[in-house]
Amino acid sequence: MESEFVAWLRQKAKSHPQVALGIGDDAAVLSLTSSQCVVTSDMLMDGVDFVMSQCDPRRVGRKVLAVNLSDLAAMAAKPVAALVSIAVPATGSIDVLKAIYEGLLELAAEYDVALAGGDTNSWPHPLAISITAIGEPTARGVLTRSGARAGDAILATGEFGGSILGRHFEFTPRVREALKLHERYDLHAGIDVSDGLSLDLSRLARESSCGAIIDAPRVPISAAAVRLAEQHPDRGSPLEHALSDGEDFELILAVSAETADRIVADDTIGMALTRIGEFVAEPGLWLRDGAGQCQPFAPRGYEH
Amino acid sequence: MESEFVAWLRQKAKSHPQVALGIGDDAAVLSLTSSQCVVTSDMLMDGVDFVMSQCDPRRVGRKVLAVNLSDLAAMAAKPVAALVSIAVPATGSIDVLKAIYEGLLELAAEYDVALAGGDTNSWPHPLAISITAIGEPTARGVLTRSGARAGDAILATGEFGGSILGRHFEFTPRVREALKLHERYDLHAGIDVSDGLSLDLSRLARESSCGAIIDAPRVPISAAAVRLAEQHPDRGSPLEHALSDGEDFELILAVSAETADRIVADDTIGMALTRIGEFVAEPGLWLRDGAGQCQPFAPRGYEH
Repeated sequence: MESEFVAWLRQKAKSHPQVALGIGDDAAVLSLTSSQCVVTSDMLMDGVDFVMSQCDPRRVGRKVLAVNLSDLAAMAAKPVAALVSIAVPATGSIDVLKAIYEGLLELAAEYDVALAGGDTNSWPHPLAISITAIGEPTARGVLTRSGARAGDAILATGEFGGSILGRHFEFTPRVREALKLHERYDLHAGIDVSDGLSLDLSRLARESSCGAIIDAPRVPISAAAVRLAEQHPDRGSPLEHALSDGEDFELILAVSAETADRIVADDTIGMALTRIGEFVAEPGLWLRDGAGQCQPFAPRGYEH
Repeated sequence: MESEFVAWLRQKAKSHPQVALGIGDDAAVLSLTSSQCVVTSDMLMDGVDFVMSQCDPRRVGRKVLAVNLSDLAAMAAKPVAALVSIAVPATGSIDVLKAIYEGLLELAAEYDVALAGGDTNSWPHPLAISITAIGEPTARGVLTRSGARAGDAILATGEFGGSILGRHFEFTPRVREALKLHERYDLHAGIDVSDGLSLDLSRLARESSCGAIIDAPRVPISAAAVRLAEQHPDRGSPLEHALSDGEDFELILAVSAETADRIVADDTIGMALTRIGEFVAEPGLWLRDGAGQCQPFAPRGYEH
């Protein structure tokens, strides 16, 4: 299967000014604008991250790339290229394989990301697909998890919770937003919410050796989180979904209180950001209610 | 499982001068000596590339990295770092997972390759593991598949065939040899033999728009190929094994006839290279016997 498919893929993968050597050799050669590169890998599996029999394979391809682009966004790095390794069920058709790549290539085109190589295999088990995304830092360097300081505001893009109802396929990796914000403002730290708002926030706080207080009334709760809570009243409130559901793929940023004010007022970022709390010196995570009362909150989310 | 494991891994993954930011953030940041990077991905699966129940997990980890280093060797690129994405059976123990990484890390240390990141998952299916290796070109640039010219000699490292008897776990990725040769000699083209000598040679010839003649008596046949032919007389001669078995992970190089003489006589490369034939203008592949008679030879090997 591989040779026919690789021929198809070489045709589909457009040339890219930063790909000096693309699909068809033992490795790809990328030309970067600096001598640093930013690299991340994420693997998604049938039955864990999607259910192949219940979804359009295009959405699967899109999702795997989007998840990786979201990681580059969290670093405020500019995506350049992706490598795709895939193990497909031997019983599957080549059309399904092509559809996965079509979904992936469509998103790649949107973000000017080159498909530079990878590895295609079949086996008698469900689909597993891993992407490595390669990006480059901008002139301002990368954004890490470790720069938040006590007193910083917590900013978030988008809304949280209930992505299982569909958004986990359709989310927008916040690449453009991250690059714009990083260029214009002094961002202290960033992370993308892949495993749950409270869990990923607690990771950022830990890497920054500080704690965080989430202002419960300010958490942007998605309509899907509300719907999910209505459908399954036993599984938690909309707020609980927003705090602990995985796969929002929004960004959490740490910025000074003053910068937060300016970002929240900036209507040229392409989306609104919400101030959802603040970082504090004491390690830990707290939920603050509308009356200003803080309660310790055990971070919840998806553990791999 | 992931957080405990990642903590273990962060401790195990040594610091590396070219890793500006390693495991623990959304992506890793690598510092390269030039603005080009060489990237390759290979995925290996239980039941296809190894049988987990029958082998030491250390050997599995070693193999996945070695396969990727072999691809960088084929480009004459210097390895810098690796990202590891893995889906392990949920029933497996964390000790098995650690053993896989121990095997991998041991080889990484041998080649000064940093483990810079990845993704660890579990699922109710067999092990799948994908590595992306990142390297950098030397001052001479990369070696590709497309530079062979009619009249060039075909040089090969090592011996071929029968790697299934054990060498597919133990092979040496020819990184050091490739870098030495590329520095000292004018190499026209190169490929590593992952799918079979004749198949990979035909790929190199096709990318170079030429053909190739293999001198049958000169093909270095491994002792394992002889043993395999003795065990299964119906599955082909030792020469047939050498020409078509996969996973030798030796290098095939195209060099001028004069350079070939010098390389074959050079005893400082660390291993002997053998001249096994020549490239010709007419596309195709031929086998030449001891009497100089050529027969067309259909490339054989492992198709994914």
